[in-house]
Amino acid sequence: MDYTYTPARIDPARSRLLRAQINDFHAEYCAVLDTGDVELWPEFFTEDALYRITSRQNADLKLPVGLVYAEGRDMMHDRAVAIGRTQMFAPRHNLHLVTNIRIIDETPDGEIEAEANFLLIQTLVEGPSTVHLAGRYYDRFVQASGDKFLLKERQVIYDTAILANDLVYPV
Amino acid sequence: MDYTYTPARIDPARSRLLRAQINDFHAEYCAVLDTGDVELWPEFFTEDALYRITSRQNADLKLPVGLVYAEGRDMMHDRAVAIGRTQMFAPRHNLHLVTNIRIIDETPDGEIEAEANFLLIQTLVEGPSTVHLAGRYYDRFVQASGDKFLLKERQVIYDTAILANDLVYPV
Amino acid sequence: MDYTYTPARIDPARSRLLRAQINDFHAEYCAVLDTGDVELWPEFFTEDALYRITSRQNADLKLPVGLVYAEGRDMMHDRAVAIGRTQMFAPRHNLHLVTNIRIIDETPDGEIEAEANFLLIQTLVEGPSTVHLAGRYYDRFVQASGDKFLLKERQVIYDTAILANDLVYPV
Repeated sequence: MDYTYTPARIDPARSRLLRAQINDFHAEYCAVLDTGDVELWPEFFTEDALYRITSRQNADLKLPVGLVYAEGRDMMHDRAVAIGRTQMFAPRHNLHLVTNIRIIDETPDGEIEAEANFLLIQTLVEGPSTVHLAGRYYDRFVQASGDKFLLKERQVIYDTAILANDLVYPV
Repeated sequence: MDYTYTPARIDPARSRLLRAQINDFHAEYCAVLDTGDVELWPEFFTEDALYRITSRQNADLKLPVGLVYAEGRDMMHDRAVAIGRTQMFAPRHNLHLVTNIRIIDETPDGEIEAEANFLLIQTLVEGPSTVHLAGRYYDRFVQASGDKFLLKERQVIYDTAILANDLVYPV
Repeated sequence: MDYTYTPARIDPARSRLLRAQINDFHAEYCAVLDTGDVELWPEFFTEDALYRITSRQNADLKLPVGLVYAEGRDMMHDRAVAIGRTQMFAPRHNLHLVTNIRIIDETPDGEIEAEANFLLIQTLVEGPSTVHLAGRYYDRFVQASGDKFLLKERQVIYDTAILANDLVYPV
């Protein structure tokens, strides 16, 4: 995937329907992460999905490494369980804001390439709310059934160079 | 109301129309608060509406108390007048950003349950812009006429544990 | 233009289509600024467009001055080139988040008056991500062809009173 500007290659009317549907996906995904059970998080992905969180600097240099790397739902599940348990010891509130959704392309077999900006606001106990992570999603979706979409790939490319703490919560 | 993750119970196509309409509501509501006259704020509510701002911690413990509690437009009006006058002495700029709108349910009599994430950015005179309050709306709307919606209940559940100052502006 | 609250004067259904289209415009515009080539920025404007960035305080006092003022694509192009080159010496990442889009009016000759809230998050090398600029767009669009819109006027009115550094990136 390329993380520079890619012009959209899709009919505008089709793009608007897809944007509304993907918008719903983001809202559900973030609601589960922010107010639900992090262990449900892998269910937003296909069985063999790729998930990576990496800095823009790494992405620009095309380095494969990242802060988080998971291949397949099983790895994501392990991570979600680990986070769910760590949270008990270091409680914090997460709030994801997703904006600027762009539908880039739709392949003949129904794969959708999309981007969006996100802001992850984090609040530690007895602290103010701060920008924990800011960046951009580079996503590939498949339409599972009707209005249900799943992520086949999510590259979370964040701008933030210094993270306030070590625990990496899904984005 | 429950402040954990609630899956949507509504047809996706209907949900998208409602989301577009509720999106318009949020944009109007915030524009009045940010660039208009705070005394118009109660007009976004039904006569008997419930409005509460409380921390997520309080909400999780099911404590009824909150930072702000108003039952009915009259109480909101009193609050708005008080704030309008205080603003003269402690001027600041407010900016509301609303994202991640979710339509949860629509009852047979037309009541709509919805959620959204918000960020309230505040700028004091000669200061930087900071995240003043970050959290989530838990709303019940009624459709007053055509495309006009009113809030019957708004629960503002904020994550932020420390507020930068005492004046509580509507969210 | 008036920078206080202006009620919308447009049919709600028409407003929703326009909002979806303008939403696409913002997403493209910001993607070019954040991950593309700033020298493409003037292409989002008409040949004779007006672009201004000014503080809300200045706007409220109806002062014509501002942080940035450009009349026509040529002036914008000069600015974009200057910024493109400065960036090499003071690298930073920009992330624009646009929310709360409002369509205010559509004139018989197809000019669209619209507003939106924005947050410009900036990350300096080896620094955290911070709110660099927060404010509101006051826009006039023309429909160039089909789904393509161009800005005829953009007034960027920011709340932020203290800017973290001197370089003014397009908003």
